[in-house]
Amino acid sequence: MQRHFDEELQALKLQLMKMSALAEAMISEAVKALMDRDPSRVQTVYEREKEVNHLQVVIDEMCLTLIALHQPAAGDLRFILGAAKTNSDLERLADLAVNIVDEAKELMEQPPLKPFGILPRMAILARTMVRDSLHAFVNREPGKAREVLLRDDELDQLKRDVTAELTDYMSRDPSAVSRGLALVLVARNLERVGDHATNIAENTIFVVEGRDVRHHGG
Amino acid sequence: MQRHFDEELQALKLQLMKMSALAEAMISEAVKALMDRDPSRVQTVYEREKEVNHLQVVIDEMCLTLIALHQPAAGDLRFILGAAKTNSDLERLADLAVNIVDEAKELMEQPPLKPFGILPRMAILARTMVRDSLHAFVNREPGKAREVLLRDDELDQLKRDVTAELTDYMSRDPSAVSRGLALVLVARNLERVGDHATNIAENTIFVVEGRDVRHHGG
Repeated sequence: MQRHFDEELQALKLQLMKMSALAEAMISEAVKALMDRDPSRVQTVYEREKEVNHLQVVIDEMCLTLIALHQPAAGDLRFILGAAKTNSDLERLADLAVNIVDEAKELMEQPPLKPFGILPRMAILARTMVRDSLHAFVNREPGKAREVLLRDDELDQLKRDVTAELTDYMSRDPSAVSRGLALVLVARNLERVGDHATNIAENTIFVVEGRDVRHHGG
Repeated sequence: MQRHFDEELQALKLQLMKMSALAEAMISEAVKALMDRDPSRVQTVYEREKEVNHLQVVIDEMCLTLIALHQPAAGDLRFILGAAKTNSDLERLADLAVNIVDEAKELMEQPPLKPFGILPRMAILARTMVRDSLHAFVNREPGKAREVLLRDDELDQLKRDVTAELTDYMSRDPSAVSRGLALVLVARNLERVGDHATNIAENTIFVVEGRDVRHHGG
């Protein structure tokens, strides 16, 4: 029974890593679609969203099955509940990638603005935060999770920088308001990618360092 | 043991309802702070956020304790996992209220724009969606949850209307770009309140109608 449990727990971790890799790739792809004005990348993002939605259901069921069949001890139970929450965070990354390509699609129909190179930088940083928070979670490493939390300030600063730059740009050229606003919203979506990485990192700390559930309540 | 379980499950539902009521009130308070330019309401929102964060920890621990001590049957287990996810959604509502008062604070330091009455309408609709999705969840009523999903389109439409109105306003008056952008972001935050209500509603349907975990996997 213990061997089965360990195997199933390992399978759960692999599915989470697969889902994270997929969501990370969607974020990169969405920002490339925006920067390169590339409709084929827009399509790729829409198609991958379906895969992520399917994986979300699979992972939730794995969590339920693991608890129902094995009645895991406190630490593992905490981990599995954390996995179900992490699953929700990963699924929302896919929604954010879709939001970004929705804006990209609108922008492709209008003349290009000057390139705002901060956006790809934000995408790389946000994507790395997701990858590292997920690694911290599956390996139960709160130290690594805390490093992710620190990087969120950097991402917020980049968002503030690009928002200020775009606000200035729109104030000088009112014909650019609609397009500038779309790019501000892209920056917000990338900031939210970082927020979900932060959730996963905080969740990791709660899972590993939280109080033992059997010592109170009830 | 069954009586204890039922009592603890009831206590969990009461805590979720308390948390939801608190988060809903924060959304209303935040939009009032914005519309009335009222710094005291800003403070109220910041203070209530701490209460919500505390409740989140309490509810997560209740979920863990319920599973660890009572090894609930499949339907109840699914409900408790759903409760842990709903807990995360409710906590993020408090973050959104904080985002709104952050914008409100900035706006108070500048001359007022004309009032955009759609924002309070969005707040009322979003708040009602949260209340109804939470009721659907605790009472396990997927029909009521589906009604919430329908209303999300209405909220999205209001967001598109106010964004179009503000884009037009900023294009005509470039000195209003920074303030107009702040209001667009408030509208996005209210849209996201609706997104979390949607998550809770979808979660309700999954909890009640999802496949029985003991019939597959493992």
